[in-house]
Amino acid sequence: MHYFDVASTAPLHPVARQALTAALDEGWADPARLYRSGRQARMLLDAARETVAEVLGTRADEIAFTSSGTQAVQLGVLGALRGNRRRGSHLVHSAVEHSSVLHAAERHEADGGEVDAVPVDRLGRVSPAAFAAAVRPDTALAVLQSANHEVGTLQPVAETAALLDGVPLLVDAAQSAGRLPVPAGWSLLTASAHKWGGPAGVGVLAVRKGVRYSSPLPADEREGGRVPGYVNVPAVVAAAASLRAVRAEAEAENARLRELVDRIRTRVPQLVPEVEVVGDPVHRLPHLVTFSCLYVDGEVLLGELDRAGFAVNSGSSCTSSTLTPSHVLAAMGVLTEGNVRVSLPYGVAEDAVERFLAVLPEIVAGVRAPLGLDLPAPAAAGGGAEELVIDALGKRCPLPVIELAKRIGEVPVGGTVAVLADDEAARLDIPAWCEMRGQEYLGAEGNRYLVRRTN
Amino acid sequence: MHYFDVASTAPLHPVARQALTAALDEGWADPARLYRSGRQARMLLDAARETVAEVLGTRADEIAFTSSGTQAVQLGVLGALRGNRRRGSHLVHSAVEHSSVLHAAERHEADGGEVDAVPVDRLGRVSPAAFAAAVRPDTALAVLQSANHEVGTLQPVAETAALLDGVPLLVDAAQSAGRLPVPAGWSLLTASAHKWGGPAGVGVLAVRKGVRYSSPLPADEREGGRVPGYVNVPAVVAAAASLRAVRAEAEAENARLRELVDRIRTRVPQLVPEVEVVGDPVHRLPHLVTFSCLYVDGEVLLGELDRAGFAVNSGSSCTSSTLTPSHVLAAMGVLTEGNVRVSLPYGVAEDAVERFLAVLPEIVAGVRAPLGLDLPAPAAAGGGAEELVIDALGKRCPLPVIELAKRIGEVPVGGTVAVLADDEAARLDIPAWCEMRGQEYLGAEGNRYLVRRTN
Repeated sequence: MHYFDVASTAPLHPVARQALTAALDEGWADPARLYRSGRQARMLLDAARETVAEVLGTRADEIAFTSSGTQAVQLGVLGALRGNRRRGSHLVHSAVEHSSVLHAAERHEADGGEVDAVPVDRLGRVSPAAFAAAVRPDTALAVLQSANHEVGTLQPVAETAALLDGVPLLVDAAQSAGRLPVPAGWSLLTASAHKWGGPAGVGVLAVRKGVRYSSPLPADEREGGRVPGYVNVPAVVAAAASLRAVRAEAEAENARLRELVDRIRTRVPQLVPEVEVVGDPVHRLPHLVTFSCLYVDGEVLLGELDRAGFAVNSGSSCTSSTLTPSHVLAAMGVLTEGNVRVSLPYGVAEDAVERFLAVLPEIVAGVRAPLGLDLPAPAAAGGGAEELVIDALGKRCPLPVIELAKRIGEVPVGGTVAVLADDEAARLDIPAWCEMRGQEYLGAEGNRYLVRRTN
Repeated sequence: MHYFDVASTAPLHPVARQALTAALDEGWADPARLYRSGRQARMLLDAARETVAEVLGTRADEIAFTSSGTQAVQLGVLGALRGNRRRGSHLVHSAVEHSSVLHAAERHEADGGEVDAVPVDRLGRVSPAAFAAAVRPDTALAVLQSANHEVGTLQPVAETAALLDGVPLLVDAAQSAGRLPVPAGWSLLTASAHKWGGPAGVGVLAVRKGVRYSSPLPADEREGGRVPGYVNVPAVVAAAASLRAVRAEAEAENARLRELVDRIRTRVPQLVPEVEVVGDPVHRLPHLVTFSCLYVDGEVLLGELDRAGFAVNSGSSCTSSTLTPSHVLAAMGVLTEGNVRVSLPYGVAEDAVERFLAVLPEIVAGVRAPLGLDLPAPAAAGGGAEELVIDALGKRCPLPVIELAKRIGEVPVGGTVAVLADDEAARLDIPAWCEMRGQEYLGAEGNRYLVRRTN
């Protein structure tokens, strides 16, 4: 199988596996104990902390190990808000943060805090000025990712940080840690080892000296009082060793993967009709690319790619793991249907990418075939009524958009089509389809979406 | 080295290591993904959940995996309190629970809740009737461990549960899971894999169907919404496999270890003067025994035992890892100085225990030698003033007790000694010493402890 989903989890790096096996022998004891095996575990833990600090460009005493990136984000967000209560209870984050940030923000709001999400442009990028403008005198924390996990767009972290006037900034570096240098300007930094090839079960929470932090959890003496619970020393050792290894390989591998991703970005729209490649084409993660295929059910497409030997992910609503479409794609205003995210592992063979490009057009065509669409353009003729109502109530994504595409030709140019649809994805996908196809989206009233045919 | 500290962490069971290695190959992918490797990880996770449920006597859909026993306890306690707010905000726990319970209770109190700690007897055991009497109409949760982690005393969980009249009961089974059957009557159950020979990084939180629970953390779709963050599938697989293996060995190993512990309980007081073996001699964990040596600095003793090749732990205040003595020993009213906890691993050789018994007397004598005490009894003579004041201010445990033991003979029988001591351990150890030596403890006023010589 070709595994193209490192943005979910990277395969265990060989160095991580070696280090884990060794540390199960040497570092299995409780590092809080004073006997020899305990002291040995403590030394391995200390050394791992030094390594992670060095690679991330921080100090060992600023680093705490958590049990996941999600835990690092939750503790970082809620702990910084708690520690900076004197400033106020306002939280600012970009609209395209990881769900762990959004969920922490929801909890903060439920507890009486205020939250503002800063919009992004169509490439998924915040404007530093707009982000800074959202900050208020009572803002206790700002949160901005280093790079987006769904579309790969790099955020202007350092430029934004420079405008924040001392408001603490948490940078979620889960997608870039190890691969790219950590951007300047963070007050708190979070990362996740299994995203860089380390084992599951290790996250990183760094808090700069002088930044106020008050744990949202019950007291515990481990990890400087920041992360409760027994420390998983062997996994931490493996995480540190693989972080150093990945960082050493990064320059060469990033250049290679950047070129492979460029091939996908260029060739997918040439090979597959009605495709939109999303995310920033330049300021982006080297290894990640996302595109959306009109009129395609994302889950069916993923299933067909899996059968063909490719493991990819999707931010579409049309997958069983979630009922709402990706908030990232929604915030960008791009098509959420038929979405495919390709994230290439270090060491991936060029052949595998070529093979993917070879099979994709046929697979997409196969998924679309039963729909009987006359692609790429809707029937240009017309001659029907000036107004058409399409009842797609009860139909799931991508059916409402497919109905619209099939039948818009029934009204003359200048005529309107009203689509009745109660699937949540329609709210995003009908405007996105109009934008892609140059039709005019007139807006929605409840579940009624109005479109004017312009071509 | 002879490792006698499984109550801190057990060496990795060979089955756990095999399962971990295999699952790093087969279960490394994200179990939330739909492609083949993701589905495979999901199947391994589901199978592990079934195994753990079966061994613990619960249902798979009641089990959530956490990242540690401490996290399981924190989520269990705070989540159950949150879910049962309609009952009230009163929490009851025994005075000898693990620090994770105590810290969660402190947090609950800081957030406006009420907490009562139920005392234990000198063996470390709660009375079911006294525990039940502490429950009020507004009690939202009761917490009782299956067995104490410092002295091994089994708690009367089932008897207590039967008296609680529907108040949810969280049972912290960290020290007994895998080794002993889970006691009946729990509403929530917590455990920690590295205590039974599984890897670090895995805890268990079981919540009985119908028991109200509301996560204290931000939302997350993993683990039924109970535990946020990426699930560590390989570690969970290893935890489940070793739980089953340990359970299968338990009957035979428990009988063997019980006999070895009985040897320690019987022979240590014969071999070492001025020793108190603590904890219930009958209703106890098979593999754990704790004793306290008068006039001994626990940290020095641990260091000497380490040099002799024995890794044990101590609940004394006289260790560098904590400045306050064990709350468990304090609640039992037993001596906290010179404390040694021996917890034997499965498979330990009888010879290792015999060797421990052979070296211990000499080591304790060596630690005591520089003190110049005329053991076992203080000088019987006297003839000095009726009242003596010993200024031990600024002196750390065990020095205040040593001063008292050395100088009580200076007053006649019936005379009193006032010890001035600002070390927190003195508050526990001076009364405990009086009880051991048959002297009369008259009480304390601030830092002044009054003792009447009676023999």
